[in-house]
Amino acid sequence: MTSESNPAATVSRPQDHSGLARLLNPRSVAVIGASDDPLRIGGRPIAYMLGQGFDGKIFPVNPNRTTVQGLPTYPSVEALPETPDVAIVIVPANLALGAIESLAARGTAAAILFSAGFAETGPQGAQAERRLVEAAHAHGMRLIGPNSLGLINPRTHFYGTFSSAVEQGYPTAGHVAIISQSGAYGAHLMTMATAAGIGLSALVMTGNEADLTVGDMLQMAVDDPDTHVIVVYSEGIRHAETLVCALECARKARKPVIMMKVGRSAVGSAAAQSHTASIAGDDRVIDAVLAELGVVRVDTTEQLMDIARLATRGVFPANNTLGVLTLSGGAGVIIADAAQAVGLPMPEMPQASQKRLLDLLPFASPRNPVDVTAQYLNEMSLVSQFTDALIDEGGYTSILGFFTYSGGAPSVAPRLREQLRLVRARHPDCLFALSLLAAPELVREYENDGFAIFEDPARAVVAIEAMGRFGRAFAREPGLPAPTLPAVSLPGSNPNEAQAKALLAASGIGCAPESVVTSVDDAISAAERFGYPVVMKIVSPDILHKSEIGGVLLDIGDARAVREGFDTLMHRARDAAPLARIEGVLVARQLSGGVECILGIHRDPVFGPVAMFGLGGVFVEILQDVVLHRCPFGEDVALRMIQSIRGAPLLQGARGRPPADIAALARMLAQLSAFAVAAGPRLQSIDLNPVVALPVGQGAFALDAVITLD
Amino acid sequence: MTSESNPAATVSRPQDHSGLARLLNPRSVAVIGASDDPLRIGGRPIAYMLGQGFDGKIFPVNPNRTTVQGLPTYPSVEALPETPDVAIVIVPANLALGAIESLAARGTAAAILFSAGFAETGPQGAQAERRLVEAAHAHGMRLIGPNSLGLINPRTHFYGTFSSAVEQGYPTAGHVAIISQSGAYGAHLMTMATAAGIGLSALVMTGNEADLTVGDMLQMAVDDPDTHVIVVYSEGIRHAETLVCALECARKARKPVIMMKVGRSAVGSAAAQSHTASIAGDDRVIDAVLAELGVVRVDTTEQLMDIARLATRGVFPANNTLGVLTLSGGAGVIIADAAQAVGLPMPEMPQASQKRLLDLLPFASPRNPVDVTAQYLNEMSLVSQFTDALIDEGGYTSILGFFTYSGGAPSVAPRLREQLRLVRARHPDCLFALSLLAAPELVREYENDGFAIFEDPARAVVAIEAMGRFGRAFAREPGLPAPTLPAVSLPGSNPNEAQAKALLAASGIGCAPESVVTSVDDAISAAERFGYPVVMKIVSPDILHKSEIGGVLLDIGDARAVREGFDTLMHRARDAAPLARIEGVLVARQLSGGVECILGIHRDPVFGPVAMFGLGGVFVEILQDVVLHRCPFGEDVALRMIQSIRGAPLLQGARGRPPADIAALARMLAQLSAFAVAAGPRLQSIDLNPVVALPVGQGAFALDAVITLD
Repeated sequence: MTSESNPAATVSRPQDHSGLARLLNPRSVAVIGASDDPLRIGGRPIAYMLGQGFDGKIFPVNPNRTTVQGLPTYPSVEALPETPDVAIVIVPANLALGAIESLAARGTAAAILFSAGFAETGPQGAQAERRLVEAAHAHGMRLIGPNSLGLINPRTHFYGTFSSAVEQGYPTAGHVAIISQSGAYGAHLMTMATAAGIGLSALVMTGNEADLTVGDMLQMAVDDPDTHVIVVYSEGIRHAETLVCALECARKARKPVIMMKVGRSAVGSAAAQSHTASIAGDDRVIDAVLAELGVVRVDTTEQLMDIARLATRGVFPANNTLGVLTLSGGAGVIIADAAQAVGLPMPEMPQASQKRLLDLLPFASPRNPVDVTAQYLNEMSLVSQFTDALIDEGGYTSILGFFTYSGGAPSVAPRLREQLRLVRARHPDCLFALSLLAAPELVREYENDGFAIFEDPARAVVAIEAMGRFGRAFAREPGLPAPTLPAVSLPGSNPNEAQAKALLAASGIGCAPESVVTSVDDAISAAERFGYPVVMKIVSPDILHKSEIGGVLLDIGDARAVREGFDTLMHRARDAAPLARIEGVLVARQLSGGVECILGIHRDPVFGPVAMFGLGGVFVEILQDVVLHRCPFGEDVALRMIQSIRGAPLLQGARGRPPADIAALARMLAQLSAFAVAAGPRLQSIDLNPVVALPVGQGAFALDAVITLD
Repeated sequence: MTSESNPAATVSRPQDHSGLARLLNPRSVAVIGASDDPLRIGGRPIAYMLGQGFDGKIFPVNPNRTTVQGLPTYPSVEALPETPDVAIVIVPANLALGAIESLAARGTAAAILFSAGFAETGPQGAQAERRLVEAAHAHGMRLIGPNSLGLINPRTHFYGTFSSAVEQGYPTAGHVAIISQSGAYGAHLMTMATAAGIGLSALVMTGNEADLTVGDMLQMAVDDPDTHVIVVYSEGIRHAETLVCALECARKARKPVIMMKVGRSAVGSAAAQSHTASIAGDDRVIDAVLAELGVVRVDTTEQLMDIARLATRGVFPANNTLGVLTLSGGAGVIIADAAQAVGLPMPEMPQASQKRLLDLLPFASPRNPVDVTAQYLNEMSLVSQFTDALIDEGGYTSILGFFTYSGGAPSVAPRLREQLRLVRARHPDCLFALSLLAAPELVREYENDGFAIFEDPARAVVAIEAMGRFGRAFAREPGLPAPTLPAVSLPGSNPNEAQAKALLAASGIGCAPESVVTSVDDAISAAERFGYPVVMKIVSPDILHKSEIGGVLLDIGDARAVREGFDTLMHRARDAAPLARIEGVLVARQLSGGVECILGIHRDPVFGPVAMFGLGGVFVEILQDVVLHRCPFGEDVALRMIQSIRGAPLLQGARGRPPADIAALARMLAQLSAFAVAAGPRLQSIDLNPVVALPVGQGAFALDAVITLD
């Protein structure tokens, strides 16, 4: 299930999502393979729907019975009194195709296949799976599964699932949709959500994703007016385009998406021929794409739940700042530490406000965290006065109050709630969270008052920070357009260095003045044309890493050195690679005084061409300090990428250097991203290593270029 | 409360901890300022002890009453019928000294001061606080507080506290001691521990720490036979020596210490004159010292609780590996991701075992995580068969089982517990954790069966990894001794570069061949003695960062260049610092072909001299890729330090370089650590930048040395 490749990719995919609303809200459901036993797989969906009171019609189909769990039962799909909106198919794998054909022929909008024994069992099963999809699509029907644990809509009590997780409690209706590839983990999430008091608008478990993928279900959730927050659990992304499209819609609809994409520790599969490939072919591409699309990616289920729960409050500050009210200095420090760790700003209170608060309570710490001390127990109105000050005077968009066990004490809670409700009413647009320890019923009352409750203050901080990321994503204006380039005409095989540079130069990607020569005399005249010192390199399509065979000579200072260098390069190439085609020697002006960078392109198997930027030397190879972005993009994005790496101070003039021409680098990176798209799918990778960024105003030049084609 | 300095440091500190056992287990307790009202501060401790059934005598002291809460009451300390082991003092600040004097004179072992109004209010309060300690120590009495929320021993029901946290539930007796500087957060931790089912052997809140500090209380907990696990919450460390000593005792006693030291985000206070100082003067010194002493430092309360809870199982594998049994492939991936993130090894199952498991269950994933699939519901014995295989054949020391809601389902749990109990009985030394969702009573039953239960599998992984860290710390053999050096005789003021190098060289810390000269002719003869190329540097005690004024010349290749260089340096020094004392020019052989490193010493205000190692250039200044360690230490520790930095591959021969002489670097670092101790407290910092590590066998040499004295 973690494969990134898609055996069903050859099947055409309908782009119409209108039928999916009926999948989520069916008026009628057929159960193919219905059982009278409420504990069997074929009986559970019916038992759940009958028990919870499904808002629609249920049509059991079973040729051997006339009633199932008290419902009139039909011998076949053809015998149904009307076309069901949705069918649940529970028959063995070898009977599934017939059922799907019949359902599609009757015009059913969608089928949910519990049946297993398809792609997960091998190539034969994958073929059978493709036939299922073809049969469905022939009549415009869509499929969930096979090997799916199904779909639940707690609002209509539609239980298209056989999961036993509901035995520990049915989900409550609400506004969070959970979309999970995994059945077991999807049900695990539902159970945790229910325990955490999170109401659901949908739970979908997509299984093998022969037809409908996580991306399609995401689109369904975006289109569903009752879904406000979307939680996704994914093991491997299929149909990146559908997913990206749905995520863009979610952002525009201001529906936050929280995603757990597991498999960070899986070994990347890309070839190691180019440095770019070996670096980009990992989980960080997914990180980059999700961040770009405004998704908050989490590593733990706990974060998933915390962030989803807080997101249901619907407050997403674009310029998020945290104001803290605490009755314990220690907790204030814990919160400040946690806020710094996740980059959530906690600016100081204005001086005048601090003075005013100290007048109110001489022992207070008024900076932020604002410490109201245990004195609030004697003077409960301090809570509302101090909190109002945080919001009105400090201007914080998010407030976290730390009240620990005292917020849960029966002698304190009613008075505290009264104060907090006053503040809440005065500031309906503010995000409020409280860290306190209380009995579950009391926690619920605080929640109903409009406060998100967290035991651990550090967890509250992590969730609050995420609300700001959503806010920034929702507020983002369209950026600069990517450069437009004419279609690039690629050569039939991998170009040599000079050809690669010429190709790139034609697209506005600058290289150092250089020339490929085949004789010593031409080398000398080129060197004298560019000015000494020059660099000399062997040119061969068969030698990728020139420096490893001594094929790069630096600091060539005069004609005699050019002459010696030419001979040295020829000898070294012959010694190291006797069969390599030698196309000549490249002579280039040696640029110095700049900062060495690496720019690259790698074709990601999921998201297509991805651009990489990093600093040269140890930064990329040892520290993996690189930034990635889907292609193409504009110069504004390129600039942000460059500024985001840890080594960025080196470009900005650290250690006494002149600041580098970051604008030229950004231009080159954006051009490269456009080039990668214009070059089409044959382009596997580009490696510009090094690119020298000269001081501001002097440009950036690629000193080497390797282009690898399919 | 977060100050690292200690206003009470001038007061002599008794090193005898024998009285502390009586503090924790008093046979009699006097309450000075006792109140009849069980809700007042002076009434709460008595009410709690009476209500819970304290195992000793309670002597209320109140001159205005003859009984308090039904107990005979005494007008004064002098009037008590016997000397109490412990006294709780609740009188106003101005009466505290008298009470302490009386108690000390009667021979009371220890007093707990709730009274506030001392050091936390300013210099005058600090002075009053010192007088309290002097009065106590005059008769060998020890103090907790002032401004303390007190001490609880749930085993004897000794409630030396007025915290209202117990209103939400009294702690249960157990084996975890919680030591907290903060009162409110200490009580918060107690409440969370109680809710998490963690039994306590003690809760101490040290308050102002005028006398007894977190370190003393830690020693008390180490000495307490009923304490097996120690949890510490600290805001600022006082008396580092006591703390370090207690932590060493804890490690030897195999008592795990989990510590939350908050204030990571506080700005370091060390002077920025030397690079070493600005880097070392931060929270990472505490990180380094705690790691060295085998403490697991945590950032969140949740981790504190999870790790403490798992530690009560008493299983600490020195070579920790994780075997995972899961019924969901997705959860297996989540667990593998989490294990990789914290560095917990999950080796693959042996091939033969994998084959055997596949024979048992053809759809299983047998590698590790071992996926038993939902099939276990039909064949529950698979659970014990697969888990036995993990332990017996895979040799994993820790097992994590993922059973989600199905482990909590009434139809599954009894059969699952039966299987798990079989495994548990067969492997008493194995660490077992389960991730499942169940009702609280059922969770408790699993816990009683010998399994630690976690909802979130990732949290279980973090806790399991910590058990291995304890195991390694407990198993650690004494390392190499630190080098022994004769006492170092420091000059009266900061030495110049040449003097500094001579001082260091006398302690075996090697520098490049060099000589300080005051004339051009001497410079030329020195250069010819060493061999070209040479380096020339200005020598002045008033110019710390020579390179910034152009005071360092490289690649001096012949006599003419030496002559020009000498003049250049003199001019530049005069231009940049006209008043600087110029002591000459240093001529040194220029070493090349090595890796540049930085070695340094910084005097930490808490822990004394701390050594730093990092790579030169961007590594230290931009990436802060450094490692720190308390001085002194042996070469084995130095070697581990060097190998631990992110840039270490550069020393080990990355990017085609010859491997550097790491052994020589380690020797130099260990010598430097011994030098720092031998030099005594006047030494503020040493900055060896750069140190060049030549290829293996060729040594490491400091090219520059700055020593700063007090």
